[in-house]
Parts: sequence; structure tokens; C-alpha cells
Amino acid sequence: MRILVDGMGGDNAPVEIVKGCIAAAGQTEHEILLVGKEDLLWAAIREQVRDKGPSNLGVVHASEVIETEEAPVRAIRSKKDSSMVVGLQMVKDGEADLFFSAGNSGALMAGGLFILGRIRGIDRPAIAAAVPALNAPGSFTLMVDSGANSDCKPNNLLEFAWMGSIYSEKVYGIERPRVGLLNMGVEAGKGPLSIKAAYDMLGKAKSIRFIGNVEAREVPLGACDVLACDGFAGNVLLKTMEGTGKGIMHLVKEKILGGGLLAKLGAAMLSAQLKDLRSVADYSEYGGAPILGVRGAVIKMHGSADAKAVCNSILKGIPYAENGVVQGIEEAVLELEAIEQDEQPE
Amino acid sequence: MRILVDGMGGDNAPVEIVKGCIAAAGQTEHEILLVGKEDLLWAAIREQVRDKGPSNLGVVHASEVIETEEAPVRAIRSKKDSSMVVGLQMVKDGEADLFFSAGNSGALMAGGLFILGRIRGIDRPAIAAAVPALNAPGSFTLMVDSGANSDCKPNNLLEFAWMGSIYSEKVYGIERPRVGLLNMGVEAGKGPLSIKAAYDMLGKAKSIRFIGNVEAREVPLGACDVLACDGFAGNVLLKTMEGTGKGIMHLVKEKILGGGLLAKLGAAMLSAQLKDLRSVADYSEYGGAPILGVRGAVIKMHGSADAKAVCNSILKGIPYAENGVVQGIEEAVLELEAIEQDEQPE
Repeated sequence: MRILVDGMGGDNAPVEIVKGCIAAAGQTEHEILLVGKEDLLWAAIREQVRDKGPSNLGVVHASEVIETEEAPVRAIRSKKDSSMVVGLQMVKDGEADLFFSAGNSGALMAGGLFILGRIRGIDRPAIAAAVPALNAPGSFTLMVDSGANSDCKPNNLLEFAWMGSIYSEKVYGIERPRVGLLNMGVEAGKGPLSIKAAYDMLGKAKSIRFIGNVEAREVPLGACDVLACDGFAGNVLLKTMEGTGKGIMHLVKEKILGGGLLAKLGAAMLSAQLKDLRSVADYSEYGGAPILGVRGAVIKMHGSADAKAVCNSILKGIPYAENGVVQGIEEAVLELEAIEQDEQPE
Repeated sequence: MRILVDGMGGDNAPVEIVKGCIAAAGQTEHEILLVGKEDLLWAAIREQVRDKGPSNLGVVHASEVIETEEAPVRAIRSKKDSSMVVGLQMVKDGEADLFFSAGNSGALMAGGLFILGRIRGIDRPAIAAAVPALNAPGSFTLMVDSGANSDCKPNNLLEFAWMGSIYSEKVYGIERPRVGLLNMGVEAGKGPLSIKAAYDMLGKAKSIRFIGNVEAREVPLGACDVLACDGFAGNVLLKTMEGTGKGIMHLVKEKILGGGLLAKLGAAMLSAQLKDLRSVADYSEYGGAPILGVRGAVIKMHGSADAKAVCNSILKGIPYAENGVVQGIEEAVLELEAIEQDEQPE
């Protein structure tokens, strides 16, 4: 397999991206190609390894860069020789199997849509994200959508659930993943109209394991393997977790600093445990965020990903291409369409 | 002023409700009347104080009880002599100034709508909730709506923002409260269509201080005094905070238990500080959840409120009636309507 990594996207490009690729190349036999400005990328590689680096590591030249603040659609249309467009085009042309980027999320999504195209029968592709289960370190919920689609119809939620289930099974190896629908109560008949309609559709799904509504409170506690929600709610959930974690850590620190000698001593004795905590909540540990529903394997890495997160994302993302997630979704579309035609969308 | 408290609603009724009312009666000169089954409530009072209790504490008889799991509209319509209906009717008739209940939220909201009625010009009443600012113990954001309205139009969000601002000013004494709109990015033009339209409307508001979009990550860190959002997003935010807090506490405990003698000793030395943490995140500390937009002052107390939370809610909620929040909203409606007529709702 040939894996492409955008060498120019993200806050820490190219150095951390290059370091992450070198580390990943040492742990896989697949070919890893950095896409971007050739001279710059080779210089960064040489700075790390003082020669050509691992034999399965290479560079594909692309002269332009899409910046974080650029308008997505325009950037994709105008910068034909950007690392992002070149990478996606190679996947489209069958010259590569998988593309990773820590760059502009909107542009990556737009590029996925325009260059690779939607899988037939999937109305809206989505970006999935791993939400850590705080009570069971190492496990997590795959949340689809995490922010790409802010206004969703019931069939979008049905498709998100389905794609998430297939990804969870094929990439994480979870057998019959538990699929939940984010809602404000567990009972059927709760919540916004679009979610009620999605609930009814999911109830007819035979080849995924729908466990019903899941409340936001249960998500950080690992209530399901896959969570379907619109991108707005997904964004609220993910960012609330982040802000709450940050707030609690701040409080702990303040309490310790204001707590006298005994508290400070206690904290020092606990410090190894507190450090461990941070890595549990750090979702870069769980790999990148796959774009689902496009005709090719694309994974968004965190904008501030460091070498470790880049390496992790690459190694954990390989099964997206290796185990045929795109084909899996294509094969599921018949059943999806049967359910959708059965319903009268609102 | 005469304050009514539903003696029959909530998980801990009547004992904790009665205890909370006795405590509150000792700290205010207003009359506090428990509403519910007379014999039962007097017995509970006598059990606490062994006589008639504080002179400003009394009981109003109501023979029926609306249970937590009852269908709200039906319960309000059929149980005319329930503590909830009797309490709301007394507010409507001018026989009382303020009604508190820890009972069925949906029924309280439905009762507010049917018995008190909407304030003219307010399309949808809402339930506000205090979200603690974890980085500044004691301060919080008033989130409107917290779950009553799952599908919202732009004008609903405008009205929520407005009502929250008035409440925050009159009840918490915050001058020109910072009003934010929950969204998935801070820039204008982000997010779902309904939120974009609400953003435009709020931009025209002169008598409230609109600070723009606020991301969910910043809410637990006190980014604004009032947050406008639909009830679905509000529910997701509040419950994600709850679940994340629970998850982190679980992790800390596990780390300590698995951390050997040193870590356990450290935790023991920190225990006073860790206990303090819990009260910061405990939103019962910040009083109850006011229902805004109905023609009368009604406050929902947490279903599992104990005596302390009941007492807190009562004392902190008194300014809802005392400082004329309902009149304040009535007076704001002219400006609200001018903005709404100016816009073409989606």
C-alpha cells in the first residue's frame, strides 16, 4: 500500500509531520510519501535522520500550500498544485491508497467531495472523531458527525450511524458495534423532529446494532461504540468535554496551590497519576478523524498534532484502506436506500 | 411577598423540601407556603421542628400529586387539585408571587404555559440553567434554553438571549451582562442556518450586550454571563459537563487506588481540596432553573434537590419576583418585535 501524508498542513508542519512519518515508516512496511515542497521536506527529513531516512519514506512534490484560514472551496478550486489537492488526486487516480492531512478541515472535506466524490447513495459525507471513554482508558466512542454538517436531515443521521458502524468494525475490530443516537432522553419520541425520524429509521436497520437514544452524559462514560449526531451537536459535545477537562485541571491546580504545605506535598506524591490522566483525555492518542462517505480513504489529523500524534494517526488509520471501508459502505447502500424510501422525510 | 413551594414534587419530597423551606423561612421575612397534602406536610414540619415551625411558614392544601413519569399536558389538564396546578393558579390569581417546584419539568413548563400564559410577544418560554464557570468558583453562565425547546427558530434564540439578559441583570445584579450565542466557531457566518439568522438579529439588539458566537469549549470557562442556545444543544452541553466531571473523578479515584502507598498518602493529604471541587461543579449551589417568558415567576428546582439545594433555590430565586423580571421582559418586547419584523425568518 502507498500512504500519502500532507507535509504542509497543520500548526506544526513540516517538522512534526516529518518526524511522525519517520517514526511511522519504521513501524510499517507500507510506503509513506510526504506531499509538499520537495526541497523543504527533504531538508526536514535530513535534519532528523542525517541521510535519506527509512527506505519506505519518500516525497511527492506539490508547490502550493492551502493555509488554515483560507475559504475551503475556493482554496481547493484555485490551488491545483497544493499538497492537499495533489494528495487527494493521487488517491482518486489509484496511485495511492490513503491520504492524511492536519491542514484546513473545511478544505479537506471540500476536496474529498469535489475530487473523490461521494459514495453513491450517501447524501452527506461526515468527519468522525474519537471521544475517549473516561471510565475505561483506551476505549472510546466514534462520533459521526463531529462538525462537518451543521444542518442534518434524518437520512443523514441514518447514514452517519451506518458508516460509523462499518468503520468501527473494520478498523477497530469491534464486532457488532453498539450504535447510539445522541438525544436528550433515552425514551423513543424524545427530542427534535429530525432525531425522532432518524430513530424510527434506525429501528428498521437490520445489519447494524442500534441500541437507541444515548444522552450526552453517558458519552464520556463509554455508553456506545458509535454515536450518530449532527455536526453541531457533535461539536458542542466534543468541545464541552475539552473545556470541562481544562476547567477541572485548572481547579485542581488552584486548590493545590492555595491548599498549604500538606496539599502541595500530597500533589507531589500524586503527580505521576495526574500526568497519566492527561493522556487519557488526549484524543490524539486514538488516531485521526476519518472522513466517511467519500470514494477514497482520507483521514484528518488534529491541527496541532505533534510527531507522536501524527505517527499514531497513520498507524491506526491504515486499516481504513487495508480492510476496505469504502467498499463496505458501498455494499451497505442498498439496505440504506430501502429504509430511506420507506420513510417520508420531514 | 408570598412564596409557594411544591411540597410534593421531586425525588426527596416531602422531607427534604420541608427541611429546605424551614431553613429558608429562617433567612427571609417573606411568607413561605408549602403546597400539597396538608396532613402529610404538617407532619413533616412537626418532625423537624416539634411545633408549628417558623411563623412565616405555612401550608396550602392540594389533594393530588403529579408524578415524574406522567405525560405533562395530560397531567396538568386532569389533576386540577395537584400541588403544581394549585400553586400556579395562585400565582395567576395574584395570591402568590413566586412558585418553586422540584417535580415533573415537562408538567411545570406545560402548566406555566396553560395556566399563566406566555408573555405577549414571546413565542416560546424557556427554562434557564446555571452552568458553573470552573475557572472562577462562584460565577456561572445562565444558559437559555436548557432543554424545554428542542426545535428552535431564530426569533426564539433572540428571545432567549433577551430574557436571559434581563434575568441576569435583575436577579444576579450583573450590569450589562455579556450575552453569547452558542456556535461551532466564533466567526460570523458559522454554524446552522437558524443560528446564523439569530446572529444577525442579535447584532441589531441595542439594549443587550451581544458579544457574538461562543464555542462550547469556552462555556465551562465562563466566557459569557448569558448563553442563548436551543434546548437540544443546551441539554448536550449541560449533560456532557456532568458526564465528563463524573468520568474524571472516576479516573482520579482509580489512579489513586492503583497508585501504591505514595499516591494514596498523597490523596489523603489532598482530600479536603478534592471535596471542595465537588461543590464547585454542583449546580444546585447556584439556585434553581427559572422558567422565562410566562406571565409569572416560576422556578424549577433539581429533581434530586436536598434541603440545602431547596433552601438555596428559594433564597436566590426571590429577586425573580421582587425585582420585576416579568415586567422587564414585557417592556422589552417592543424592541424585540421591531428586530423580528425586520428579518425574514428562514
